This record gives sequence, C-alpha cells and structure tokens, in this order.
Amino acid sequence: MKPVKVGLLGLGTVGGGTVTVLHRNAAEIARRAGRGIVITHAAAKAYNAAAITGLDRIPKITEDAYAVVDDPEVEIIVELIGGYDPALELILRAIDNDKHVVTANKALIAKHGNEIFKAAQDKGVMVAFEAAVAGGIPIIKALREGLAANEIEWVAGIINGTGNYILTEMRDQGRGFNDALAQAQALGYAEADPTFDVEGIDAAHKLTILGSIAFGIPLQLDRTYTEGISRIEPQDVAYADALGYRIKHLGITRKTQQGIEQRVHPTLIPKRRLIANVDGVMNAVLVMGDAVGATLYYGAGAGSKPTASAVIADLVDVTRALTTDPENRVPHLAFQHHALSNARVLAIDEVVTAYYLRIQAVDQPGVLADITRILGDSHISIEAIIQKEPMEGVHHVPVIILTQRIREQNMNEAINKIEGLDSVYGAVTRIRLEQLD
Amino acid sequence: MKPVKVGLLGLGTVGGGTVTVLHRNAAEIARRAGRGIVITHAAAKAYNAAAITGLDRIPKITEDAYAVVDDPEVEIIVELIGGYDPALELILRAIDNDKHVVTANKALIAKHGNEIFKAAQDKGVMVAFEAAVAGGIPIIKALREGLAANEIEWVAGIINGTGNYILTEMRDQGRGFNDALAQAQALGYAEADPTFDVEGIDAAHKLTILGSIAFGIPLQLDRTYTEGISRIEPQDVAYADALGYRIKHLGITRKTQQGIEQRVHPTLIPKRRLIANVDGVMNAVLVMGDAVGATLYYGAGAGSKPTASAVIADLVDVTRALTTDPENRVPHLAFQHHALSNARVLAIDEVVTAYYLRIQAVDQPGVLADITRILGDSHISIEAIIQKEPMEGVHHVPVIILTQRIREQNMNEAINKIEGLDSVYGAVTRIRLEQLD
Repeated sequence: MKPVKVGLLGLGTVGGGTVTVLHRNAAEIARRAGRGIVITHAAAKAYNAAAITGLDRIPKITEDAYAVVDDPEVEIIVELIGGYDPALELILRAIDNDKHVVTANKALIAKHGNEIFKAAQDKGVMVAFEAAVAGGIPIIKALREGLAANEIEWVAGIINGTGNYILTEMRDQGRGFNDALAQAQALGYAEADPTFDVEGIDAAHKLTILGSIAFGIPLQLDRTYTEGISRIEPQDVAYADALGYRIKHLGITRKTQQGIEQRVHPTLIPKRRLIANVDGVMNAVLVMGDAVGATLYYGAGAGSKPTASAVIADLVDVTRALTTDPENRVPHLAFQHHALSNARVLAIDEVVTAYYLRIQAVDQPGVLADITRILGDSHISIEAIIQKEPMEGVHHVPVIILTQRIREQNMNEAINKIEGLDSVYGAVTRIRLEQLD
Repeated sequence: MKPVKVGLLGLGTVGGGTVTVLHRNAAEIARRAGRGIVITHAAAKAYNAAAITGLDRIPKITEDAYAVVDDPEVEIIVELIGGYDPALELILRAIDNDKHVVTANKALIAKHGNEIFKAAQDKGVMVAFEAAVAGGIPIIKALREGLAANEIEWVAGIINGTGNYILTEMRDQGRGFNDALAQAQALGYAEADPTFDVEGIDAAHKLTILGSIAFGIPLQLDRTYTEGISRIEPQDVAYADALGYRIKHLGITRKTQQGIEQRVHPTLIPKRRLIANVDGVMNAVLVMGDAVGATLYYGAGAGSKPTASAVIADLVDVTRALTTDPENRVPHLAFQHHALSNARVLAIDEVVTAYYLRIQAVDQPGVLADITRILGDSHISIEAIIQKEPMEGVHHVPVIILTQRIREQNMNEAINKIEGLDSVYGAVTRIRLEQLD
C-alpha cells in the first residue's frame, strides 16, 4: 500500500522528536503498520533544525499552519503546537476538511474535547490523543481497549513528572519545597514559572481525560478539584515516612454511588504499594478494575521521544483504521458517544477519603481530649495518633492524626472547630490519605 | 447492531470467569463495543455450575466441542480448554470454518502458533491471545500497538506468579525452596506437581510469545533457554540482598547484533528497580524501547477473572475488527506476516550477561588469587568480591563474586577451571545478573 501522508503542526520538543523517531524507525514502523507513514507537509514558526533528524525528507515546511490543514493530499494532521489558540481552530478546521487528527494537547482535550469529538463524530473522522496523558505510557489504550471487560472502580496516577521529582527530592534529600523546586528548575524539569506543574493544573488536564475514559462521562475540567504541592512541608514528608506512608501528588478519579470523584492533590499512600516507589520524573497510573483487579502502567510521562512514541502509536492506529467503518472504531471517550453517562462529578466536600492531620497544640493536659472529642462529634474515626515531645523551651507540640475514611464536609467542620480551640495554634495541616487497595 | 455470537470451549477456571464477567458487565461492555457480545454455544465435559454466573443464559451447552466449532451461527470461538490436544485441532477447524479465535492457551501458541497464524492468515480470520501472557495485564496490546513506534531493545518479565510467590517467601520469611513451595501449594498458588511453574516451562511459553511480538520473529519455543528456581538456596537470596539485589525468575528477550536472546532463569536485579519490588503472585513486564525508554506493566498474571478480563478485551477487539479489511488488522506477531525477521535465536552459551558466583573455597592464602587469575584469563572483569569469614571449625568459606557482562561460553570455561582447583569444593553456584538499565 502507498504510504499515508501526514501533516505536522509544530516542530518543537515533541514535534522534533516525532520527525526524528518516524525517520529513524521508518522500516520498523512500516513492518508493523503494513505501510509507510510519512510527513509530507509541516508547519512551524521557528525550529532547531540541527536537533531534528529527517527534517530534510519533509517536502514542504511552512510557517502557515492553515496551509497544512488545508493541504488536500494530507490525510492525518498531527497537532503538536499546544495551548488553545490557534490549536483549537486548526483542529476543528482539519476535521471540517475530513482529516483525522492526532494530538498531544492535554489542555485542549480536557477543555474543548467534547466539542472536538462531536465535530469528529459528525464527520466520521478520528481524533487520537494517547500522548496527552502520561507521555509514552500507553494508558489511554489500556483503559479504552485493554481493560474493556471491566467496570473501572478507580484510577490513581502520578501524572506530573515535575511534581513527582520535587516530592522525591524532598523525601530523599530532606529538602524544602522551594529548594527542591530550584533543583528541578536547574535540571530543566521545571519551568521558570512552575505554576502549571506544581499547582496541579497540568495533572488536572490529564486526570479529567482519565476520568472520562474510565467512566464514560463527558470531559469536565471545571469540575476537577485541583490542589498543588507547594504547601507540603518537610516535616509532613518525614512524619508520613515514620508512619509507613509516602506523599505523592496524585490524580484520582473514582466511581461512587453518589457520582464521580475527580481530584488532584497531595496524598499519603502506603510505602509498600508499587506506585509509592515510582520516583523522580517518572509517571505511573494505577487502575482498579472489577475483573482484572489492580494493574499499573509506568514510564516516562514527558520528553521529546517518549511523547513522540505515543504520537506515532496513534498514527499507526489511525492508519490501520482509515478504512474501518466509523461505527467499529474505538470511541473517543472509550464508550459509544450515544452511551455516555450523565453521572455527576462530585464537589470536593462530597468526596470520601482518609486524612493525615497535623495540629500545633499547646503541651498541656486535656488538649488531645478536646481534639478527639471534636473528631468524634463529626463521626470521624481515628486510625492513629502521635503526639511528639515538645522541643526545649517550646510550648506547642505537633499532634499527628491519621483518620479513617469520612466525607470531606465532615472533616472541614471538624477542622474549623479544632482551629477554634484556644489550645491550638494556627491552621491545621490536612493531607488526604488513600490506601489504594 | 446485533450482538456478536460467541462459542466457548471450556468452562473451567478461566471459562467460568469469562461467562461470569461477560454476564455481569454486559451493559458496560456493550457501551464500549457498540454491540453486545453473547455466548450462544458452550462446550465442557464437566463444570461447577454454582460457581458461574450467567450460565443459564447460554442457550446451548454441550459436551461436544466440535459441535460448537461447527456451529454456523457462531462467529468467534473462545478456546479455554488448554493443552495441545484437542485444542490445536479445534482451533484449526474453527479457522477452517472461517471463525475468528480468542485463546488463553500459551502452551499452544508458543508451540504451534506459527501453524495457527498461517492458517488464520490464509483464511483472513483473527487469532487473539492477550490472555496467554501475564493474565489480565494488556501486555500483548502494549507491545503490538502501544509501543509500535519503537525499536524494542529488550523485554524482561516476571511472568509466572507461582515462582514469584516462592521467591518472595524465601526472601521475606527466610524459607528454603521446598518450604516455600509447600506454602504455595497449601495456598493453591502451586500445583501438586509444580514442575511446569517452578522449572520455568510456563514462563518459557510466555517468553517465546513476547520475543516474537517484540522482534517480529517466528515463534521458536525450542530455542528458548529454560532454567527454573528449584536450585536457589536461601544463602544466595541473603547474599544477593546484602549486595543490593533481589533474585527474580525472569523471562528475558533481547535483540543483539548476533541475534535474539530468549531465556528464562533466576536473575539478580538491583533492588531499586520498580520490577524488583513486584512481590507475591503478581506479574510485571518491563519493556525497553528506543524512543519511549523503559515502561512497565503490572498486574495479576493468572486467576479466573483477571484472565477473563484479557479474553473479553480480545473479544471486543475482534468484534470491532470483524468488518475490517484483514490487511489493516493488527498482525498476529505485531509485524506483517511477510515482514517477519529471520534473526537467529541465540544458544545460551552465546548470551552476554553479568553473573553472581558463589564458590566454596578452602580458607587458605592464594585461593582468591587462583580464582581471579582464572576469571582474568577468560576476560571476565570482577565487579565485586566478598569473602565471608569461615564458621568455627569449618575450613571452607563462601566467596561471592559479581562479574561484569561476558559471553556465557567464557563463563562456562572459567567455572570449569575453578571447579578443577584443589582448593574449591563442589560445584560453583552461578546466577545471572542484569542491571535492567
């Protein structure tokens, strides 16, 4: 068969990697796909030609992305520009031109995916986005296809490498957050403005996508609870460790009787879980299915060639399905578009989880009794409680409490009351805790 | 669309699980697949009806497997009988009857897969076998599709849960092999005759399949080197631990300039690797791709419902591809049948790996010099050497040596010479060692 013709938008880190890997492994890929996959038209404002192998084999390179999207010879558009504008317009125009789309754009899919998939559905074209979640790990494929027999119960993932690197440094080296962040920036793992990664926005994009394909609900980015790691203190990392836990920045989505949980936040998890041992910039996604039980998928969540690996896997899939009846293709959100669920995404105060609490209390009799009474009144059961010895000349001591699972609203009420105690200093530190069993 | 009609051969552990999960998750599966998947005809000599949910919804249950394979209404045959006879004949007859096949039969695919795939190719039907390797983990899909962009460099997997349970018990509880095996048998993790699992035969079946789909070579079970764990001693587990390693029973397949390595044997691997922390009956497969780097896939490698999860995922895939042009389906061995490689599978003495050696030597001057001279003469570099203190009244001491990578033939020669030394007692214990980096 003739090679399939691809138009590429963007020649940055991932775009360059895609050109390089497609060129380098062209024979291997064609042996699998049954035909070649060649980029015939690419668009980029600027690029580092020296860093890209095979760039000279692309017949047309332009600054005008619309020229690629409108190129009648091109069958598949690969969007690697990122961001919302003009990526959304370009993708919608590609779809309108009856072209299939492959994208790594997690922000765009999380925010505008419903609109994009509707347009693709109407036109009978595919939009593939494996590279949008966890880089090179084929987690979209695993969830949509590999686990198709299962009712998914929950998904929990380390889906931001920058945050995981920082938390790993804090634990291994005893660094503070700012120090670990500076280290991540020095190594190129964090941006000059790290907000997107450390405040959980990037993870929220990915988790929103995971929630949709796990449970067959429309993408609802604005309903995803998002909390970053910038307020994690070294003492909490140390106390967690002493109690047999590690703090990981997790994206968690879970199906409950009440609705779907979609939440990104720091989480204490038992050290003995395999995912607790995923360190540095690596990503991992743990999926609980009712038939298969727990499965875990681990690998590089970012980077030029790992992300290119996912983009090209999508290209092979789309190439294979070009002649397939649209009804028989894998649905965008794993479930048939007419069979999506209207299950509600829960607000964070409706979520049920366990907690780690650190309370600065006066070292005097009766304080623990006051705290445990408040927790009891809010129906919160205590799993463990540790009161540290006060340091010389200091009159307040940290009280660490691990609770059993409770609705977050109950916990908020209890924390308000605890903070109102005369014998308690400042705010209560609260970190959610999951057993992942 | 009308439900797809499936014929099921075998109502044992996996067959029963398949009926149960297909029934329980029927709505969820249909929401994904776009149509129902129903078993209309099943065959089994005997079964435990009470353990299978949804059995009463199967219109026809017979003792005659050939009646199912010849049923003109059935589109897909699921073979869950296991073994070679009559499974091979049934599958070939199903193919001859233009039916697609889903099987969990690793022994059959590893030994007769080339013949089966040739017949399927000629007839334009699919034979899917996700459940044949690592149970519920979608590793076949990951390798054939998710990592399609990559030149695979190597694959290393814990692909036998029984063996992994025994090694985990030996490490955690300090048990001997026989003791740990008895424990595994008491818990139902090992058969009364455990040969198949502990001698690596089951793992060799799975590794043979992994090697073929990783590198696009025909299945060559008889070329897979197979060594079990029954000779692992508690002292080796302890010495490995002290040196920062764990002993795992791995299946390893690797592409080299000289050919393909396909080998199953106990292996020392660094403790800090994620796969070294896969314990108990769980399975995991680590894949190194040239673009994506290392990815790992973890989950239950056996059991009724986990294996059913993989069987049903295959049913969904086959259902989707029913109307697809055979040329555009995912090839059985990942690479197009006319593009398979004739790369040679290497004999074990051609393999290059590092080694752990334990030598029982007389506690006298000059012994270490003799041993290290022999290793040096065979071009074997020493990574670490530990000589233990002799116990009171004992005149021989264990010498532990970790070597760098060397061709196994060189190591065999060196071991022969070491065993010939007057100052060395008995056989040298040799366990291969891989850094997996």
